[in-house]
Amino acid sequence: MTPEFALIRRHFARPAPGALLGAGDDCALLAPSVGQALAVTTDMLVSGRHFFPDDDPRLLGHKCVAVNLSDLAAMGARPRWITLALALPAVDHAWIGEFAAGLFDLCGRHGVDLVGGDTTAGPLNVCIQAIGEVPPEAALRRCAARVGDDVWVSGELGGAALGLASLQGRVELDADERVECLDRLRAPQPRVALGLALRGLAHAAIDVSDGFAADLGHICERSSVAARIELDRLPAPAAVRVRLDRPVAREALLAGGDDYELVFTAASAGRHRIAGLASQLGLGLSRVGTIAEGAGVTIVDGAGNPVPLARTGYDHFA
Amino acid sequence: MTPEFALIRRHFARPAPGALLGAGDDCALLAPSVGQALAVTTDMLVSGRHFFPDDDPRLLGHKCVAVNLSDLAAMGARPRWITLALALPAVDHAWIGEFAAGLFDLCGRHGVDLVGGDTTAGPLNVCIQAIGEVPPEAALRRCAARVGDDVWVSGELGGAALGLASLQGRVELDADERVECLDRLRAPQPRVALGLALRGLAHAAIDVSDGFAADLGHICERSSVAARIELDRLPAPAAVRVRLDRPVAREALLAGGDDYELVFTAASAGRHRIAGLASQLGLGLSRVGTIAEGAGVTIVDGAGNPVPLARTGYDHFA
Repeated sequence: MTPEFALIRRHFARPAPGALLGAGDDCALLAPSVGQALAVTTDMLVSGRHFFPDDDPRLLGHKCVAVNLSDLAAMGARPRWITLALALPAVDHAWIGEFAAGLFDLCGRHGVDLVGGDTTAGPLNVCIQAIGEVPPEAALRRCAARVGDDVWVSGELGGAALGLASLQGRVELDADERVECLDRLRAPQPRVALGLALRGLAHAAIDVSDGFAADLGHICERSSVAARIELDRLPAPAAVRVRLDRPVAREALLAGGDDYELVFTAASAGRHRIAGLASQLGLGLSRVGTIAEGAGVTIVDGAGNPVPLARTGYDHFA
Repeated sequence: MTPEFALIRRHFARPAPGALLGAGDDCALLAPSVGQALAVTTDMLVSGRHFFPDDDPRLLGHKCVAVNLSDLAAMGARPRWITLALALPAVDHAWIGEFAAGLFDLCGRHGVDLVGGDTTAGPLNVCIQAIGEVPPEAALRRCAARVGDDVWVSGELGGAALGLASLQGRVELDADERVECLDRLRAPQPRVALGLALRGLAHAAIDVSDGFAADLGHICERSSVAARIELDRLPAPAAVRVRLDRPVAREALLAGGDDYELVFTAASAGRHRIAGLASQLGLGLSRVGTIAEGAGVTIVDGAGNPVPLARTGYDHFA
């Protein structure tokens, strides 16, 4: 048996009860549910860009799955299957074992099967593709925001970016703040249950991966509408809130990526149901602004003055 | 617009008529056909390992799609959709445009839509995932070879590996031979039409990506059978055939990867239909041996003596 096959069998061979045929053949075979559309997404994470080479491999395994499930959640899709392509600079079984543990743990919590993949030597690179299911008419599309909608945000924003800034020496956090922010950076929780609950309730949705203003901007552009957001309503962890007079924290809140919360729009008639959802899911849902005619995202402070945005989101080629 | 979005819009935004919703949202939305299973595969190609950094980007775009469609063909699946994740060291529009041209050209020839993807900065890495459809009972699985089956090979074997050996200075080819072998290395043709035609006719199938003996070995292992192959019956281009007394050519034929031909087994009662297929598709189909009780692949020369195999296939971590 070659090292490649031994590696796969040792670390990635698990039963795939949700597949007709899992890994080990030319293809996996999957039985899609009748009446559902497939929601398909892929994310590639590169060492030194999306994560540090010495990051905890278990958390990396978690995060690589999480960012893909987050895309499914933003579509209102139920996650079902992933494939994994992995380039490794060397065969380090301890590292791979931890990576696999983090990956399978998050998959298990969401009923997702790893059904295939590819491993190769190369600079460390993790590419996951995820497939979910959603009734086509219930999918939460970016183009579906309507004038008069409320804009909502789940959880809190800015913690992941402030954690990254702390690692980069751009801000000093106390020990508790650092733990909280790094947890948001390294172990984001895909809002799968929220995405499912928003079917038929939200209009447009997106997950915050590139930054709140940039991602909401995608909804505005696709829907041909404007968004007006109240800075004071944006939910943020204490570490971000107490520093909002500093550019590093304000930028983390408005333009920081990697929070993987959902931003969605919904008719004002849905406010009561959405509040009920928040308590049902144990997840904060904050109403932060409104959709209006026009174009672009405007963020206003407590006095109603627009907040300037130095940069709106993360650019992978900047 | 960020460089990342500009890059995607400029080079990869094409209509996806086979999708409910193509690229540009959190996920693509696809409508699977009723009664069909999904066949899903992924392949990651790394610069310096699977291809040379200065390879023609148009051929690279072709090959990255071809290797995935080849996996679908080996399952008997009809290709429908791909996603593309691409790590690029820099934004070189001329390179990306050629890469996209090669990718879309092959997709177009097989009715495949690019429905989503991800681009990022990083060491050059191309990861494609392909989704096809096949009636679950018609899928060509590695475990389905039966004692008494014939073993068949499409096209010719060894040309790609001999072309690579020529690039590496391990063999000298004349100009015509070099053109032919490098074409097999750089522009493999996925045997999609053959895979579809083999539904209900072949038992087991696999595509030759790691080497003939290794890949047939996977069928034997999964099917708990042995294969006996006659060396003289193995189809090879002239450049390989005239050098068969040399290890470099013999290894190219038996253990060379990257040919992307199909190896399949079928009952002897199917010989006439398979011969008909060959002329219908304009593709050589060679009967090269038989499936027997036992284990492993044995290759015998004209005198019936076993041919020793120095290595059976390509190992990505060797």
